[in-house]
Amino acid sequence: MDGGAAAIGLKGCRRVRGAQIRHLLDAKACFLFDCDGVIWHGEQAVPGAPRVVHALLRRGKGVFFVTNNCTRPRETYVRKFRRLGFTGVRREHIFSSSYCAALYLRDVAQVRGGGVFVVGCEGMREELREAGVPYLQEEADVPGATIYDCALSAGVKAVLVGHDDQFTFLKLAKASCYLRDPDCLFLATDSDPWHPLKDGRILPGSGCLTAALEVATGRKATVIGKPSRFMFECISSQFTGVDPAQCLMVGDRLETDMLFGSNCGLDTMLTLTGVSQLEDAEEYSRSEQSTKQCFVPDYVVDTIADFLPAFEELD
Amino acid sequence: MDGGAAAIGLKGCRRVRGAQIRHLLDAKACFLFDCDGVIWHGEQAVPGAPRVVHALLRRGKGVFFVTNNCTRPRETYVRKFRRLGFTGVRREHIFSSSYCAALYLRDVAQVRGGGVFVVGCEGMREELREAGVPYLQEEADVPGATIYDCALSAGVKAVLVGHDDQFTFLKLAKASCYLRDPDCLFLATDSDPWHPLKDGRILPGSGCLTAALEVATGRKATVIGKPSRFMFECISSQFTGVDPAQCLMVGDRLETDMLFGSNCGLDTMLTLTGVSQLEDAEEYSRSEQSTKQCFVPDYVVDTIADFLPAFEELD
Repeated sequence: MDGGAAAIGLKGCRRVRGAQIRHLLDAKACFLFDCDGVIWHGEQAVPGAPRVVHALLRRGKGVFFVTNNCTRPRETYVRKFRRLGFTGVRREHIFSSSYCAALYLRDVAQVRGGGVFVVGCEGMREELREAGVPYLQEEADVPGATIYDCALSAGVKAVLVGHDDQFTFLKLAKASCYLRDPDCLFLATDSDPWHPLKDGRILPGSGCLTAALEVATGRKATVIGKPSRFMFECISSQFTGVDPAQCLMVGDRLETDMLFGSNCGLDTMLTLTGVSQLEDAEEYSRSEQSTKQCFVPDYVVDTIADFLPAFEELD
Repeated sequence: MDGGAAAIGLKGCRRVRGAQIRHLLDAKACFLFDCDGVIWHGEQAVPGAPRVVHALLRRGKGVFFVTNNCTRPRETYVRKFRRLGFTGVRREHIFSSSYCAALYLRDVAQVRGGGVFVVGCEGMREELREAGVPYLQEEADVPGATIYDCALSAGVKAVLVGHDDQFTFLKLAKASCYLRDPDCLFLATDSDPWHPLKDGRILPGSGCLTAALEVATGRKATVIGKPSRFMFECISSQFTGVDPAQCLMVGDRLETDMLFGSNCGLDTMLTLTGVSQLEDAEEYSRSEQSTKQCFVPDYVVDTIADFLPAFEELD
């Protein structure tokens, strides 16, 4: 007995290595990866990550990248994967919150005519364009324009909020006014609170802007990104045979990635190359609040490069 | 029996008129008024309000104006009172959230050196200047500057958030970075969610910007304005003999004004010239959640002009 079979049945922060990972590779048909902090850090691939992804693809595994980063259209991701040494990753493997938001607006909300008011970035607009979802062409605001006197469009069908480094008070006010109409949909790409930058700086996440708008309107946004289930629904509607029981969600953030996996009925793995630490996971695990158990990963690895020895054994 | 004495003892949405109001005028030594929606609407006095205020002052009552509106320094309020026909209102009667925030930073937090990063408007800076509280002189941001490369000041002692129609993503990001330092105080003038404008438009309140920053930092702001008790503490530290049992708080917003009164142990009166309606108050009154009882006014009037007949009877 190497303990591997037992490991697959256990729940909660189980550190896994060689043989146990080999069992996971056997047991799972699909691997879902978060990107930043898991397979890369900004412009640097996590060492070994390209080989892991390549090996999974070569073995015919389903490989999907589920990212709350809404700033890039998928085409840009494809180029980034190539630039960082990942081979064989195609556009259809990539599920970003902006792409899935565009799918939601097209297929679920079925936005026609009118248009979407975007509090967000160019990557979001590009996914909307590609999905054929109409959105308001924001002209640069007239200098000195205020919510007291600015023009507001008629027939806005939805407000979509995501990362927006050009966010202004006037945008917030306009979006608040549009959302006074209860038929105007309120959608957010993700609810990420912040992202780490260098030198201890942080980048406020979409969740901040969404929170501002939720307070102004007294409404709750429908969130597309992790931990909401919708991105998994996008994957399983586009690929046949995606069985939650045969999927592993690999991420670095307990409150988004592990909760997402839990919400979708997937086994989860925390990699320690990103935001959350083992201690954070163990604290949740010890918590008596049952809601916190959804943040606890089934498995923990130092890095996804820990997969590599398992492949070598298999080869 | 005119029922007046009984009225003073009762709790909950009691509609009061002539004789009952006369009893209140006898029983109370201090009257605290919210401004917008209570004594004026923008640039128009509520009809009769100037006479009510004048009559209270003439009878030697304490009259205080407690407003969450942080955009104007008190001097500007004095001029507005005069312009709208209120006579005898002096600067020391006015307690705005920006003035009280400046007092908090000077007397409670005792900010020295370093400085305050202001996410707010000129009215807030003016109150800080007058109180001698140092704050960061924000230069116009270099075009194209981002949180990745902008300059950050050392030794920021507090972030103060209020209404800011020049709010940008970069300000949010800078404030988030300053608040990474747990010794940096996080203060908000108020947590008002929105304010009504004409034509169904709304103006997002300080509460929106505070919420954005709370999400980015995982911290909760200390709120100066109503419903926090601090503004009442400012009044009672500057005036002798301000006994909560002898004060009446008059406002138009259940969730701020009535809760403020309740938090400070004051009797409360809702006037129906502003945001909240009688039905809203009655709904809270019927609620079985004890926390909602704090939103229920003791008394309700259509307008504070309903005070006038009581004065006439007294004269």
